[in-house]
Amino acid sequence: MIVRHYTEVAALPVAMEGAENVLIRNLITAKDGAPNFAMRIFDVLPGGHTPLHQHDYEHEILILDGEGEVTEGKRIFTVSPGSVIFIRPGTPHQFRNPGEQSFRFVCLIPNQPTPDVRALPGKDASSGG
Amino acid sequence: MIVRHYTEVAALPVAMEGAENVLIRNLITAKDGAPNFAMRIFDVLPGGHTPLHQHDYEHEILILDGEGEVTEGKRIFTVSPGSVIFIRPGTPHQFRNPGEQSFRFVCLIPNQPTPDVRALPGKDASSGG
Repeated sequence: MIVRHYTEVAALPVAMEGAENVLIRNLITAKDGAPNFAMRIFDVLPGGHTPLHQHDYEHEILILDGEGEVTEGKRIFTVSPGSVIFIRPGTPHQFRNPGEQSFRFVCLIPNQPTPDVRALPGKDASSGG
Repeated sequence: MIVRHYTEVAALPVAMEGAENVLIRNLITAKDGAPNFAMRIFDVLPGGHTPLHQHDYEHEILILDGEGEVTEGKRIFTVSPGSVIFIRPGTPHQFRNPGEQSFRFVCLIPNQPTPDVRALPGKDASSGG
């Protein structure tokens, strides 16, 4: 059994092109012996956003702190602590924080030997808007 | 994409023998089309506990509210919001709430066609202590 506080895990900038002011903590991964899926916490800082992107695997997400937006095509969902989000494989999506406090969520993905993540072109991807 | 608040999902009593005052919300499951793993939130009410039990799959857990205990054999870990717990397959474990407020955590498991969950005999299983 591994027990640790999430703040003990380093928060690293998300390096993917199109990400701005997004930090990731890899809490439980295959390196810990997790056989099937990985748990991460993201902090989208005020004004920050992930790229508009898609990939061939799902997200299972629970919002922990702050308020933010998640997009699916032209649909925009406003989410807050306790919101649960299931993003199916292949769905273009983006997280944004238009607020003034950190927008934090836990996000789980299946283990990925070779993740296929694609940033999508267009104004959303370049401007984050 | 599915977006909902966790409180919109019914909280059901955990029916497993040896569970007392434990509620489960099945937030994202195979019924929603989740291909690999399921997200649930548990509430262990004051004085409540899960059975001492084990199974052939892992748990990935984040504590959300309250304070509680998780056991691994004779080891007892006290956990609180932000604690992350990885329980490997086959590890006997129990959750207990000796406190006065609800002990709430999100717990993910791989999809289980035929879950093999075993309550373990002994004083811990019968008394919850």
